[in-house]
Amino acid sequence: MPSSASSWRADQLSLLARQLHARQSSKEFEELIQEAKIEFQEAYRFGDLKQEQIEERQRNLELLDQDYLRQKRLDPTLVVELAKAKAEGYNLWQQARSKAEFRYFSPALQKLITLRKEQAIQLAEQRTCWETLAQPFEPDLTIDRLHQLFAPLREVLPDLIDNVRGWGREINSGWDLDENSQKVLCDRLLDDWGRDLNITCIAKSPHPFSITLGPKDFRLTTRVVSGNPLSCFLATAHEWGHSLYEQGLPIQSHQWFAWPLGQATSMGVHESQSLFWENRIARSRAFSERFWPYFAKEGAPLRSGLDLWHAMNPLRPGWNRVEADELSYGLHILIRTELEIALLEEGLEVEALPTEWNLRYKNLLGINPQDDGEGCLQDVHWSEGQFGYFPSYLLGHLISAQLSDAMEESLKDSIGDDPIETSIKNGNQSKLLEWLRKEVHAHGRKMNAETLVKKVSGKTLSSSPFLTYLKKKLDVLKSTS
Amino acid sequence: MPSSASSWRADQLSLLARQLHARQSSKEFEELIQEAKIEFQEAYRFGDLKQEQIEERQRNLELLDQDYLRQKRLDPTLVVELAKAKAEGYNLWQQARSKAEFRYFSPALQKLITLRKEQAIQLAEQRTCWETLAQPFEPDLTIDRLHQLFAPLREVLPDLIDNVRGWGREINSGWDLDENSQKVLCDRLLDDWGRDLNITCIAKSPHPFSITLGPKDFRLTTRVVSGNPLSCFLATAHEWGHSLYEQGLPIQSHQWFAWPLGQATSMGVHESQSLFWENRIARSRAFSERFWPYFAKEGAPLRSGLDLWHAMNPLRPGWNRVEADELSYGLHILIRTELEIALLEEGLEVEALPTEWNLRYKNLLGINPQDDGEGCLQDVHWSEGQFGYFPSYLLGHLISAQLSDAMEESLKDSIGDDPIETSIKNGNQSKLLEWLRKEVHAHGRKMNAETLVKKVSGKTLSSSPFLTYLKKKLDVLKSTS
Repeated sequence: MPSSASSWRADQLSLLARQLHARQSSKEFEELIQEAKIEFQEAYRFGDLKQEQIEERQRNLELLDQDYLRQKRLDPTLVVELAKAKAEGYNLWQQARSKAEFRYFSPALQKLITLRKEQAIQLAEQRTCWETLAQPFEPDLTIDRLHQLFAPLREVLPDLIDNVRGWGREINSGWDLDENSQKVLCDRLLDDWGRDLNITCIAKSPHPFSITLGPKDFRLTTRVVSGNPLSCFLATAHEWGHSLYEQGLPIQSHQWFAWPLGQATSMGVHESQSLFWENRIARSRAFSERFWPYFAKEGAPLRSGLDLWHAMNPLRPGWNRVEADELSYGLHILIRTELEIALLEEGLEVEALPTEWNLRYKNLLGINPQDDGEGCLQDVHWSEGQFGYFPSYLLGHLISAQLSDAMEESLKDSIGDDPIETSIKNGNQSKLLEWLRKEVHAHGRKMNAETLVKKVSGKTLSSSPFLTYLKKKLDVLKSTS
Repeated sequence: MPSSASSWRADQLSLLARQLHARQSSKEFEELIQEAKIEFQEAYRFGDLKQEQIEERQRNLELLDQDYLRQKRLDPTLVVELAKAKAEGYNLWQQARSKAEFRYFSPALQKLITLRKEQAIQLAEQRTCWETLAQPFEPDLTIDRLHQLFAPLREVLPDLIDNVRGWGREINSGWDLDENSQKVLCDRLLDDWGRDLNITCIAKSPHPFSITLGPKDFRLTTRVVSGNPLSCFLATAHEWGHSLYEQGLPIQSHQWFAWPLGQATSMGVHESQSLFWENRIARSRAFSERFWPYFAKEGAPLRSGLDLWHAMNPLRPGWNRVEADELSYGLHILIRTELEIALLEEGLEVEALPTEWNLRYKNLLGINPQDDGEGCLQDVHWSEGQFGYFPSYLLGHLISAQLSDAMEESLKDSIGDDPIETSIKNGNQSKLLEWLRKEVHAHGRKMNAETLVKKVSGKTLSSSPFLTYLKKKLDVLKSTS
């Protein structure tokens, strides 16, 4: 979009927000839910439904009720104001980022915080402000539970990073691949992973993303980053993981498509799926052993799978969250989570954000951002008033690790030792996908993230599987450095 | 879009068609027009309006009435059926084209013809069926007038083509440019023509187009055709001409944006603007003289402006309308116009279309299409039931030529001899744009195409200026061959 078009866009977005809110909180919508309840009760009374159908419909009705009530509680004026403030915030954030100066964005951020606090008050849930705003991304999450899950990471990750620094590793990173070669590799990857070209397509965009536009319409985008020959490839793997989750959701018909049960249960679970394909598969040693010849064919100066594997896992902390690897990623999230809770609940002044940001980067990652562009202006989320989203990224790492353990346990009998590595080695990832489809994707919003993890793994979600996985990987990387 | 997504897309499009029709034909919409009329009458009575304002508002109200009545006359069932048939037709046309066999598409075309005939009956205008359907593209056009305008072309163009065949010209066409070079040249072109990057942007798409999404949001796309190094450049010039017309329409505020007067008056006038920039400017000798060094710098094997000019004007008839040049373009249109009138009004059987198509191509252009893909399946228009659109392309050539003569006449005093060529030579196209803005763009839908041409040129629209221009150009091309 050309830059001057943004105010018209803001008008359009706030019109849509108002109309959507009016529809989702309307008397008519309430009556439709009422009718659906009566229909269910009659079918139930006449014994027409199997136990599974009963549970599914009850859950659908419960979610419809919940979503309707949330909309109903919001003042339409606030809805419109928020839509405008988001568009305005995004616009000013872009300007501020191009100048790398936070002060151009801070009044817009202040406004967004005020409006989002007001929104939490109107929603009137039995939760704190930040928790209330986090619900759409991570249902039932509390700040206490979050601290419990993240505390071990805060303790262990900085030590692991220090440890890697001590290896004195040297990775040959002075190479690049031209755009066409990167496209060839991405196509090979998706073909290898069994994409169906009748229902999926891939394109380029400034930021990689995945989106579902219809029951048979799954799209993803990736981007080529000059000087970073693996960025496009790994972004494709990541977005494909998101898309696979959506492709596996219980969407059997057009009608079903609009029902709550057919949706993703949380952004943490969503992220666990993208991270599984990016980190567990594409960044695994077995994958590098199989794929390095294709990279070499396109001109990458690699002599072995080990070379590619090392390049895939640089383990070098930087200021940039999006380009961060498994080792430092969590710390980027801890910092953002702490800061947004402080902004919303602990009276942190907006003006103090850059200083507080840089302080934490210094302490946790040993990094000094050169300016606000490398610092607190790097992410888009706050520019659109999105608070409570960041933890999902890290929860995704924890969930992916715990689900992976459960997968290994469950596939041991049929595949043998190390089922994930073995499947990758044999180019047989469809076995892994089959398992994910059945155990994870098919449930949609039937249960929340923690219940899902408990059901699949038999254990309460924790950071242990992730930390164990990381330490093991670091050991092998060290011994092969 | 992935192919399997098309049925969901069809559902969405028919839903939108139904909602749009319901809104544009609603009691509420009628009342709003009524209120606008009263507002106007009161302002008029109190003498608050200048003569120009009176005329503008009257015209706006007249157009609102006309557009409302057209919608009102349509049966909502037909609107939905048509939307579905268009989506289905497009889908089947794509399949038929990939197999190059008309029979896969013919039932869909038959259905579209039946529905469009029904639509013309419901619209109940004092016009024939084809004329009724052509109104949205070319207001007030009749078949008689069209024959009058096109008859000289039918007579003269085949002779001119034969003439060129006799020259035995040889153009070095064995070269190509890589994608990046073509992008560099397109950017240079648009910068040279004074684009404002705050309100415009350019991207790639399978078919070039230009679209306006807001008062400050003008977008265009182009495409790179392998083996045809000028296609992308000329498509950019063409789409930029369309965009300039839209940029020059009387849109002073957001509210104005939705008013009829702020819209293009006809597709013929629209096309005249794209053709002006593509053919009169980019394909002119003066332009080639100025731009050939930039092409050479990107690797084109050119030794002079004359080389580029010849490459820009191959004058070689082929089966493909979109890639046709000024000389043969008109014949492509004559064939389509004749055939669609025959299908809608003269009882031509759908099954006979390929045969009739090929016969005309043989007679008028000396071309034998190899299959239906090169023949009657080449254009998208009929697949979406769009009849009455094709003549606008050719009217665009006539209008562009007649407006160009008027422009020359009008700018002679300030610029000197050959004002168009002189302005191009001096890189001073802004003078030409300024004239177009004032004389053509600023009028919007204030008057129809013929009235506009008469007002600007002082003469009734005819094919003479176009034929004179063509003959003159051919003479120079011949003498320099």
